[in-house]
Order: sequence, then C-alpha cells, then structure tokens
Amino acid sequence: MINDIEIIKTEATKINEVDFDNLAFGSVFSDHMLECDFKDGKWHAPKVVPYHPITLDPSAKIFHYGQSVFEGMKAYKDAKGDVYLFRPLENFKRLNISSKRLAIPELPESYFMDGLKALLEVDKAWIPQQEGSSLYIRPFVFASGNGFHASPANAYKFVICTAPSGAYFSGKVKVLIEQTYSRSANGGVGFAKAGGNYAGQFYPTQLAVEKGYQQVIWTDDTNHEFIEEAGAMNIFIRINDTLITGPTSDRILDGITRKSIIDIANAEGIPVEVRKISVHEVVEAAKNGTLKEMFGAGTAAVISPISGFGYKDSDYDLPELDNTYANRLKKIITDIQTNKSEDPFGWRYKL
Amino acid sequence: MINDIEIIKTEATKINEVDFDNLAFGSVFSDHMLECDFKDGKWHAPKVVPYHPITLDPSAKIFHYGQSVFEGMKAYKDAKGDVYLFRPLENFKRLNISSKRLAIPELPESYFMDGLKALLEVDKAWIPQQEGSSLYIRPFVFASGNGFHASPANAYKFVICTAPSGAYFSGKVKVLIEQTYSRSANGGVGFAKAGGNYAGQFYPTQLAVEKGYQQVIWTDDTNHEFIEEAGAMNIFIRINDTLITGPTSDRILDGITRKSIIDIANAEGIPVEVRKISVHEVVEAAKNGTLKEMFGAGTAAVISPISGFGYKDSDYDLPELDNTYANRLKKIITDIQTNKSEDPFGWRYKL
Ligand SMILES: Cc1ncc(COP(=O)(O)O)c(C=O)c1O
Ligand SMILES: Cc1ncc(COP(=O)(O)O)c(C=O)c1O
Repeated sequence: MINDIEIIKTEATKINEVDFDNLAFGSVFSDHMLECDFKDGKWHAPKVVPYHPITLDPSAKIFHYGQSVFEGMKAYKDAKGDVYLFRPLENFKRLNISSKRLAIPELPESYFMDGLKALLEVDKAWIPQQEGSSLYIRPFVFASGNGFHASPANAYKFVICTAPSGAYFSGKVKVLIEQTYSRSANGGVGFAKAGGNYAGQFYPTQLAVEKGYQQVIWTDDTNHEFIEEAGAMNIFIRINDTLITGPTSDRILDGITRKSIIDIANAEGIPVEVRKISVHEVVEAAKNGTLKEMFGAGTAAVISPISGFGYKDSDYDLPELDNTYANRLKKIITDIQTNKSEDPFGWRYKL
Repeated sequence: MINDIEIIKTEATKINEVDFDNLAFGSVFSDHMLECDFKDGKWHAPKVVPYHPITLDPSAKIFHYGQSVFEGMKAYKDAKGDVYLFRPLENFKRLNISSKRLAIPELPESYFMDGLKALLEVDKAWIPQQEGSSLYIRPFVFASGNGFHASPANAYKFVICTAPSGAYFSGKVKVLIEQTYSRSANGGVGFAKAGGNYAGQFYPTQLAVEKGYQQVIWTDDTNHEFIEEAGAMNIFIRINDTLITGPTSDRILDGITRKSIIDIANAEGIPVEVRKISVHEVVEAAKNGTLKEMFGAGTAAVISPISGFGYKDSDYDLPELDNTYANRLKKIITDIQTNKSEDPFGWRYKL
C-alpha cells in the first residue's frame, strides 16, 4: 500500500523486452495500470493491478454512446533518477471538466493523484531517462454500464495506463487550414477531451494527408474564418515579433502547454496576444513576409514547428529562421519539465 | 450454416427467464450475437455466436478516440409468426455513411444482411409477438485496434446484438428548445450515427430534465434559430394542416422513420413541407393557435407526440386534438411494419 492504494503486482515483468533507445509513441505499455470503478452511485477506491484486458458486455455504453474522456500527461526522469510530473493537477481538473460535459461522474482528487503516484512508484523503472523520451501517461474514463437506452451509464471505469515513449512527431509539419469540415460546434464538446472529438477529425485529416499535409488546422464551423486549433495541439502564430494564439472557448481545448507557453513568453518579454486570429490575417502576413513562425503546442509533441500551410488550393511556406520562438520556448519548457533548470512558475511536481 | 454464415449455438438459452409481457427497452439481450472482425486490411466473415462479453486491451482506440457508429432497427413478428424487417438496406447504407465519416472501414453488404438474417433465424424465438413490442436490433462497429496515437485504428469489430423490447417512451413528452448547447457543427459528424453525438447530448438533456422536460430539441449552433432534431428522433411540426420538417444536412441524421412519414403523408394527401423552420415561427404559431401538433419520429419510439415545449423561460402547451396526424401516421407505419396492412411502398422485408 502506498498512500492507501491497494497494489497487486505482476508476476512477470515485460520490461526486458523493451528497447528504451528506440521507443515509438504510445505503443508499448508498462507492467501495471490503475483501475477504479464507479458503481452504486460512487467511485470506489482505485487499485494498481497488472496491465490486463478489459472485459465488457456488448451493450456497454462506451460501444454505443461515446461516453469517454481522457487526459495526456508525461513523467520525466532526470539524471539523478528523480521523477517529475508537469502541472498534474491541471490534468485532473480538466478531466473532471470533460467528464461533467459528457455526463460522467467526476472523480475525487485523491483517487486521481494518489492513484497516479502509486502507479508511477510501482512502474518507476518504466520511466525512460533518454533525452527526448518520457513516460506518456493516459488517464481515461469510460461508460462501462450496460443498456441500449440512449442515456448516461450507471457504471464507469477510470483507468490510467502508461507507455514509455519517444518523440511524437519527427520534423516539421505541413498543415492544411480546413475550409470544409469542422471539429466542434458552439455549445458543443470541443473544450472537452472527449473521445468523439478525435474520431471526427480522422477522416478530414486523411483527406489532408492524401493532399500532402500532415495535420489539419481547424477553423470555426460558421465561416471557417478564424484559426482554432490542430488535432491534438493548440496553435501559435508569430507575426513580426508578436506571438498570437486564439482565446480558448467552448470549442477549443484549454491546453496546459498553451497556457504554460503564454506565461513563459510573457516572462521572456516576448509580446503575446491572446485574441481571435483570422485565416485572412495569416495569409496576408504570409504574403507580405511578416509571418515568421507557426507552431503547435501540446503535451505529446510539446512544440511542433510548422513548415508551411495550405489554404484554398494555395500553399504558403514559412521562412527558415535561425532563432525561432519555437526552439527557444521548447527548450525553456522542457528544461523545466525535465529538471534541467529552475522552476520559477512552480509547475514541476516531484514524485 | 445459413447463407454461408458460421453458427455456434449457445448451450443454455436464457429465454425462459424473460417476461415477454413486461419488456423494458433494450435491457434484456437475446441468446446470440453476430460478430465480425476487421484486421489485416479487410473484414472477415461474420459468425453467429453465443452472446458473450467483449475483451479489449486498455489501449483499444474505442476507449480513447470515440471511433464508433451504430444503427437501430426492429424486427416484428406477425400473427402467423412471420418475421419482418423495415427497410433494412437503409440502415446498412447509413451505417456505412457513418463509418466513412468516422474513418471506419465500410462493411460489405452481404456481411451485414446475411449476418443479420442468420442471427434472426437463430434467435427467432426472441422476437416478441405482443402488440407494441418488437425485437430491437443494434448493429454497431467500433475501433478494437490498440495504441495511444490519435489516428484511426487498424482493427475494428462489427457486432449485432438484439433485445426484445417494449415501447421506448410512454406517453407524451414535453421538450425544451435548446438555446445554449448544441448537438453538431457545420462540417461535423451530426449526420452520422456516431457514438460521440449521443454522449454530448446527455448533460444538456439532464439540465432540461431538471427543469421538468423529458427531451431537448436541438437548434443550429450559430444562432439557435432553426429547429433541428431531438436526441434520437427527427421532428415534425404541424401548423394548421401542413406538416413541416427540416431538411437533412451534415448536422442532422437522415432518419428512416422521417422519410417514410414524408412519403406516407404525401400519399395520404397531407400537405408536407420540407424546409427550414425557425423557432420564431413555431412560437408565433403556438401563440396564435395555428400550432396543432409536434412529434418526434425515430425507430425506437416510431412516433412520439409532444405535449408542449419550453423556450426561453416560457412554456407553450399544444392543443389536445381528437384526430392527430401523429396517431394516423403512426397507425399506418406500424401496420406496414407489422404486416397488418398492404405495403404500397415495398418497405417490408420478409425474413
Ligand atoms: C484537441 C487538443 N488541443 C490541444 C491539446 C494540447 O493540450 P495540452 O497542452 O494540455 O496537452 C490537446 C491535447 O493534448 C488536444 O487534444
Ligand atoms: C439523432 C437521431 N435522429 C433521428 C433518428 C431517427 O432515425 P430513424 O428513423 O432512422 O430511426 C435517430 C435514430 O434513431 C437518431 O439517433
């Protein structure tokens, strides 16, 4: 028992099968998982158990009505072997914000935080120490209760799995500014990390990939006029020396990387504007040479520089700069995350 | 083997535990299910197997990215014991339309239709003969492939389960015309029967229920100005003697009941208009007494009369009429479905 969490350990570790120097993203899973059930109207104490399959009735509501939310976090191991999380309470809070919108019962903070800590303690050896690698952490909650009635389930499962992972993207990405499909509605669930938001993006993304882009930049569903976000990243745009990002809303995920970057940029004296930014403004800036950088920001990729974008049958390249905000901000944030620098914001969370 | 579908029968039927005179909706499941797997780039032949739990890795994409679509159909048994489906090919086509939008591989027609027929043949005894009851049929497809990368899965499962069921709603419903939340975006997945569309409706529906309504009527997400549809029903509005329903779009499910009712109403000489209908028009009609009826139309409830609606802190009651379109149309469509009348449209599908 760590922090009162029951722990059942695996009898056979798989860790020796894993090549920690050549990790893909999220495809190898650690020995244990956290499991926690909601039934009879309440969440029951979580347990650390061996990573194992989940068995559900075919009528479980997750299969039919999409009641699922998730989070994405990372644990880093520094040179001394100490383990750090980055702003984990933000993930906990956002998970509950997502759950509420999806009519999923909210979790007690201690079940999330103590459960997570117990899990990472047990699977500490799975946290990579290699440069650029980390333990990707995936908390998720889904409807496990049964029935074909389109209404909230009466049972849910909260699970945390972890996956030692390398970098998410390699290299710069070329993006398509979407003019046909949309990710979210006003008054919808776009601000939630709800499973259904991702499934809806796959087909338009496939179409973009067929045209030679790697990612889609979503725009508002009314006129496709304003830049919103990418598939799993918020978007920053640098025009001249000003860094611009759209305001969050009920359509856009309130990214933890995004808000950390805003704080870092402010502290660095980089002019930051949080305001609506139109596709028109970005295209004009690309044409007149004031568009300097675009990058995505999210836990998985941290900062993902964009090499160019497509918009209405035209392609626009971004300049190759020597000193980019993307590199500068990425170094600052990852140095904080991996305990290579001071932590002036108090974001690091030592295990 | 029926139609080349492999069949593995259960050794212990549960049918004697079921009270067919007191069936709820979709909560008792028949002895068998159809199961069909997509892997290695193709769908493999479906099998009829005993109803059994589904086992998935915690990283299965259904838990994380909401890749799931479903259908809802009914089988009816007439007085002679013959079994009928209603326009099943429409459900098959719509399932594939939904799948395409969710980047799920489309199913071959024969796997759906022959699989369905084989399943119903094996579980024929589960199809209720009681007035108002039917066998509710739930085909669904979900991502069973693994991995934490937000991209389409490489494996899927297509399943059909059935549930002997009584009526979905009992009595008239009072609805709230939604002015805050939305069901779908322009360019989104509203026209698909995607799991995520339903989860997103639960919370706003709970808020409406707390205010004394049973269902929400969704409106467009731009200005909440036009009537769209209900949770699992399309909406018809009768003003004077004209029956009005909104056009389908990428935001609204193309309901099979809806289009059948339009055809029946046309054949009956009822004036029908398929056009956008504003909330303003409905409220004005309620105020000046020309609003005669509102009803929902969908497979589960067939036709569900609405007793009144709430809009911006006011409630509007609908009149109690003796001869409603709702009752007249419901009788015609259910008589066709249950083989109590001729089938001038060729909709009935005898097993
Ligand atoms: C849609 C979307 N936007 C933005 C982000 C970035 O959020 P965060 O920085 O908290 O990871 C994510 C998640 O990673 C996301 O899924
Ligand atoms: C959102 C939605 N609208 C309308 C309908 C009605 O469609 P159908 O008549 O094909 O059952 C359904 C499904 O039953 C639905 O889920």
